[in-house]
Amino acid sequence: MSVEWLRRLRRGGPAERPGGARESVPRSPQPAPPRYRRPKFLRGGEESPRGGRAVRGAGPERPLPWGSGYAEVINAEKSEFNEDQAACCQISVRRREPGLEEDQEWLILCSTQFLTGYYWALFDGHGGPEAAIIASDYLHYCIKQKLEEVAGAIVEARPPMHLSGRCVCDSDPQFVEEKHIHAEDVVVGALENAFQECDEVIGQEMEATKQTGGCTALAALYFQGKLYVANAGDSRAILVLKDTIVPMSSEFTPETERQRLQHLAFLFPKLLDGEFTRFEFPRRLKGDDVGQKVLYRDYFMEGWGYKLVEKADLKYPLVHGHGKQARLLGTLSVSRGLGDHQLKVIDTNIEVKPFLSCIPKVNVFDFALHDIKEDDVLIMATDGLWDVLCNEEVAHMARSFLADNRTNPQRFSELAKSLACRARGKKRGHQWMLDDSQEASYDDISVFVIPLHNRVEDS
Amino acid sequence: MSVEWLRRLRRGGPAERPGGARESVPRSPQPAPPRYRRPKFLRGGEESPRGGRAVRGAGPERPLPWGSGYAEVINAEKSEFNEDQAACCQISVRRREPGLEEDQEWLILCSTQFLTGYYWALFDGHGGPEAAIIASDYLHYCIKQKLEEVAGAIVEARPPMHLSGRCVCDSDPQFVEEKHIHAEDVVVGALENAFQECDEVIGQEMEATKQTGGCTALAALYFQGKLYVANAGDSRAILVLKDTIVPMSSEFTPETERQRLQHLAFLFPKLLDGEFTRFEFPRRLKGDDVGQKVLYRDYFMEGWGYKLVEKADLKYPLVHGHGKQARLLGTLSVSRGLGDHQLKVIDTNIEVKPFLSCIPKVNVFDFALHDIKEDDVLIMATDGLWDVLCNEEVAHMARSFLADNRTNPQRFSELAKSLACRARGKKRGHQWMLDDSQEASYDDISVFVIPLHNRVEDS
Repeated sequence: MSVEWLRRLRRGGPAERPGGARESVPRSPQPAPPRYRRPKFLRGGEESPRGGRAVRGAGPERPLPWGSGYAEVINAEKSEFNEDQAACCQISVRRREPGLEEDQEWLILCSTQFLTGYYWALFDGHGGPEAAIIASDYLHYCIKQKLEEVAGAIVEARPPMHLSGRCVCDSDPQFVEEKHIHAEDVVVGALENAFQECDEVIGQEMEATKQTGGCTALAALYFQGKLYVANAGDSRAILVLKDTIVPMSSEFTPETERQRLQHLAFLFPKLLDGEFTRFEFPRRLKGDDVGQKVLYRDYFMEGWGYKLVEKADLKYPLVHGHGKQARLLGTLSVSRGLGDHQLKVIDTNIEVKPFLSCIPKVNVFDFALHDIKEDDVLIMATDGLWDVLCNEEVAHMARSFLADNRTNPQRFSELAKSLACRARGKKRGHQWMLDDSQEASYDDISVFVIPLHNRVEDS
Repeated sequence: MSVEWLRRLRRGGPAERPGGARESVPRSPQPAPPRYRRPKFLRGGEESPRGGRAVRGAGPERPLPWGSGYAEVINAEKSEFNEDQAACCQISVRRREPGLEEDQEWLILCSTQFLTGYYWALFDGHGGPEAAIIASDYLHYCIKQKLEEVAGAIVEARPPMHLSGRCVCDSDPQFVEEKHIHAEDVVVGALENAFQECDEVIGQEMEATKQTGGCTALAALYFQGKLYVANAGDSRAILVLKDTIVPMSSEFTPETERQRLQHLAFLFPKLLDGEFTRFEFPRRLKGDDVGQKVLYRDYFMEGWGYKLVEKADLKYPLVHGHGKQARLLGTLSVSRGLGDHQLKVIDTNIEVKPFLSCIPKVNVFDFALHDIKEDDVLIMATDGLWDVLCNEEVAHMARSFLADNRTNPQRFSELAKSLACRARGKKRGHQWMLDDSQEASYDDISVFVIPLHNRVEDS
């Protein structure tokens, strides 16, 4: 099983690679939790002194794919570690011809049977840094593996009904066409399955090493001329083009997913164990409200109604608070992500995981349909940035910075630093403030700036 | 209970009106199924000869609200009756001051404590005409009642936390504001609840009279300067404005709601009773596919993957077919609507109702934000029209017809007839053909054309 393969790879046991070759890595006798570290491409190094919240970026000595820029800032003592993590790499997808023997496969390896993808991802951990570290180590493996499983189907515009390419029915190609299934849909399916598999890996690892916690995941994949952005959580990616901003993700929070969460509680009331109410009210109700009709929403409502308040409605609501204060079961501020398999509501036996989803929403951008200009970029960032800067501000900064620095080869890296620095603000007394005297971000902040104009096409 | 009130009203028993007054109607000893008839505003009259499929409209002698046009055509012998139904009327919402005694209430009645709404609705029945007839009789009662229940809250821009208007917490108005709750949200909530109540009424009535069947429901409500369009099913409403088309509804079919339906089957496999598979495949699988990897989708996937086919995958799929052929459990072509409480998959014990939703999606259009021109109209029609005419064709016909007939007071009625006539086509031999030799609509077709320029504001 594929999860087993990843586990063994991680533990250092003999791991069967997708191609069937075995890799020998020394086996550790006992599973150990992942060691805290910063993204691999930053080449280790210690955390910078905390008080300063220095902006850290990738240096020019080890360029990231496409000359992307990256920058990060630790939180203002919200947690012991910077719980954000980042990863980026090239993904080589080996195309296996089904049914070929190993020696025949070797022949294919010698020719050009690799598809190249490029990958960038951000993970925002909670309840500890471990889940984000594991996710940053493995999500790209999961994506690579899921793409390899369907590699035969994604090189043609129309994927075949049977992965083997063998036609069982003469009209199979017509059925595929009638359903409007394109290669791009199979890549989206691979990403959806990869997130699910990565979540399983994290669940097994965290249980084996007695760790807890979870993370959001925002992954961008450039593959076969298209950009796929898969998101589970509250990070965000936007395309900043010359004349327009294209949102490439939407956030999944207890507020944006209220109806899904309430519906689950309606279908399985036991999940709330008598401790929570699934109804939403503008504020937590109290004794004086009993017998009154107050504003409420149930799972089927986008509008609001009035409900006669009973004693049971005084329980803590399943989804409560709004904006950054919104919480699921009083516990989590996101409704999708990886990990959290062991998470329980404090002082109860109520599990949070049944309400969480690890499935990303995938948005696709087809470069063939757009005329990409020199300064066009994809900007990915964790909520630390977006909490204090809106899309328009970020786009404005990107456009003016890039226009003013055309000849600087480090401009994407410097733009990333500049964005992180702007969101962190400056320290005045004990407070971090934005330029306009608004409160700045106290959260971890991570930013990728990915240039789109001179992107490397598949080898 | 409110459903009880409607049942009694329908049966002719003493019905307690929302205001507390009682109305005496002769009580019929046994419940009788609704008699088949055409919309009330057509003033009875017999069905026109079937072979001709004559277009029938509302005559000038009894104008519809706002001078709206209406037209209908029966199907081409698809079913015994025209299973579409229509309703339109003014809705007077009495505003009750909570806690007032009846004599005080009378004082209020004498002043201007009524809010006026305008209502148009289309219902497309299946499995018999009864559900659509009951829905056309009662949905506006349910809407009126639900609006009256919250009438105190919808006259102000910000509804109060407590329907009584009494502030339990000083900061209650602030909580309502932070949640961005407006009067419009309470109207949306009333519509959502009204559909649910109407569905209950239909369920009870159909059971009492041993009838079966269901219907879609598309309802437009003009209220307090805003247009609300609530839709459950595959009818459609569009605003045809001078320079733009604004879709006011989206369709709910087994295809558009595949993920919701599959998810329910994933959560409650027993609903499929071992007879169906929840997976979607491009075509129904057969023995030769077993052991092969074929394209599939599960509930969490917007993309496609490949699944190793097992014997269980050969079962009939929960959602199967595409376009007009798509079916839920091989039975229904819509996934939302009213009724169908007794519907079972043929020759099985599998109930369809758990998969159906009676909750509408409500879209709101605020006239205050738009400059409405003389020829701007809302066009509502059942799928009989939209199956053969797209939004652009309908908008083009509307704009050119209305521009050419500015002085004709019957132009909205004639446009409705013209649209129905175009979708029905002409009979050539045994076939109904469109002008461009495409097949025309064989379904029931019903159309409202509602002028928006000289709309009557609330009294």
